Amino acid sequence: MKRIMLTVAYDGTAYNGWAYQPGKNVTTIEGVLNRAISGLTGERIEVIGASRTDAGVHAYGNLAVFDTASTIPPDKFIYAVNDRLPADIRIMKSQSVSSDFHPRHCNTLKTYEYRILNSRCRIPTERLYSFFCDYDLNEEAMNEACLFLEGEHDFTSFCSINSQSLTRERTITKALVSRCGDLITIRITGNGFLYNMVRIIAGTLIEVGRGKKAPSEIKEILAAKDRARAGMTAPANGLFLMEYSFIEGLPDITETVEHNL
Amino acid sequence: MKRIMLTVAYDGTAYNGWAYQPGKNVTTIEGVLNRAISGLTGERIEVIGASRTDAGVHAYGNLAVFDTASTIPPDKFIYAVNDRLPADIRIMKSQSVSSDFHPRHCNTLKTYEYRILNSRCRIPTERLYSFFCDYDLNEEAMNEACLFLEGEHDFTSFCSINSQSLTRERTITKALVSRCGDLITIRITGNGFLYNMVRIIAGTLIEVGRGKKAPSEIKEILAAKDRARAGMTAPANGLFLMEYSFIEGLPDITETVEHNL
Repeated sequence: MKRIMLTVAYDGTAYNGWAYQPGKNVTTIEGVLNRAISGLTGERIEVIGASRTDAGVHAYGNLAVFDTASTIPPDKFIYAVNDRLPADIRIMKSQSVSSDFHPRHCNTLKTYEYRILNSRCRIPTERLYSFFCDYDLNEEAMNEACLFLEGEHDFTSFCSINSQSLTRERTITKALVSRCGDLITIRITGNGFLYNMVRIIAGTLIEVGRGKKAPSEIKEILAAKDRARAGMTAPANGLFLMEYSFIEGLPDITETVEHNL
Repeated sequence: MKRIMLTVAYDGTAYNGWAYQPGKNVTTIEGVLNRAISGLTGERIEVIGASRTDAGVHAYGNLAVFDTASTIPPDKFIYAVNDRLPADIRIMKSQSVSSDFHPRHCNTLKTYEYRILNSRCRIPTERLYSFFCDYDLNEEAMNEACLFLEGEHDFTSFCSINSQSLTRERTITKALVSRCGDLITIRITGNGFLYNMVRIIAGTLIEVGRGKKAPSEIKEILAAKDRARAGMTAPANGLFLMEYSFIEGLPDITETVEHNL
């Protein structure tokens, strides 16, 4: 028996989020992965995901872990699984990890991007992968606001009221806003994120970019610990889970490989 | 009666190209526009397109012209037509033009982009709007090759053998290759393009980028007037019709407007 970790990229457009929903007639990333890997190994595989992304959210680097008795070498799962997946889900990397490794119970930094099309027109080929905003946004003000997000804070104000998290303290190690033409990208790295946290941060930074909030108001919003003080929850289609990094390294990785697909 | 010109952007993924194909059970951009505008004005509208793009090709700025007796002001067509279009087709601009204006019989410069994802992995959210190439491409060599494309040339070598064009001389006023991360963009402006010309140029520049052809070989390929000497026809999904510019200005435009959509 060995434990395999897959790095998974997907276009979330057609999916009802990551988490498999038993008994419901919806398509999920996890459900499609389970079926593909089970078909490959002949076992009944149920992957454990690092992040249960919401419906419509995209990923470059979510993680899926499973145990298998298959004789397929760890570095070959990348090809074998991709052969059985639709084009909107791709394995980017496969490797073996130690048998006690759990992708949600380890010390990681996670990076998200939120993408905004700041243009006068809804460009059709951008519609699936960005939030459209036709108000002029000042990305420098948005970037200034990011400074107040960095560090350890109680992020209650930036957390969905539907969250069941017991603790609301999280650390954002880096938050940065950049513009490339009409595309504004908010890039945030942290040790953990509350429910809808990045999308509420994005909605709040958009208000800063429009001049409706001063950058320094972020400080007051954090202090208020009140969801109503922050901006809207920006739509799912602009959100990308970019990558995980392991603060203490991955334990006992026996083989690791990255390949051309 | 007035003549209206629409600037049209679309995601070509779901369409069988621009040109309406009577009697065939396929969906085309032109067919969808005709139905939307006819439904709006109550007339039988058949637009004239500036460029009959192939299946799967995208656009930021194709042009569609039609005559109407409607009392809708020219600058309001942008909203009225968009209300009746699917999200993958958007009117970016509406204006009135003189009654003898024809979008294919006027002196224009047309700009195309061809986008290449030059990465080791097929990123799912890029798959619809770029050609995936996992060989390392040298964009500087590709850019050097562009110099040999600029100017007036016989582009027979860069023209599909299925082309019915009588003359093969065209002028490329500007060709440029740039890289932003993993995305390589070929941007080409010219006074006219032969059938598949940009896609064959892209396929040839990819060979230059891989080191299989020297940049200066473009000169010999042009001189040979032989399609077999150029590279492959790169896939449609990487191609974007970006914009038209009118060399002598638009004749007798009575009203013009650009708006937030």
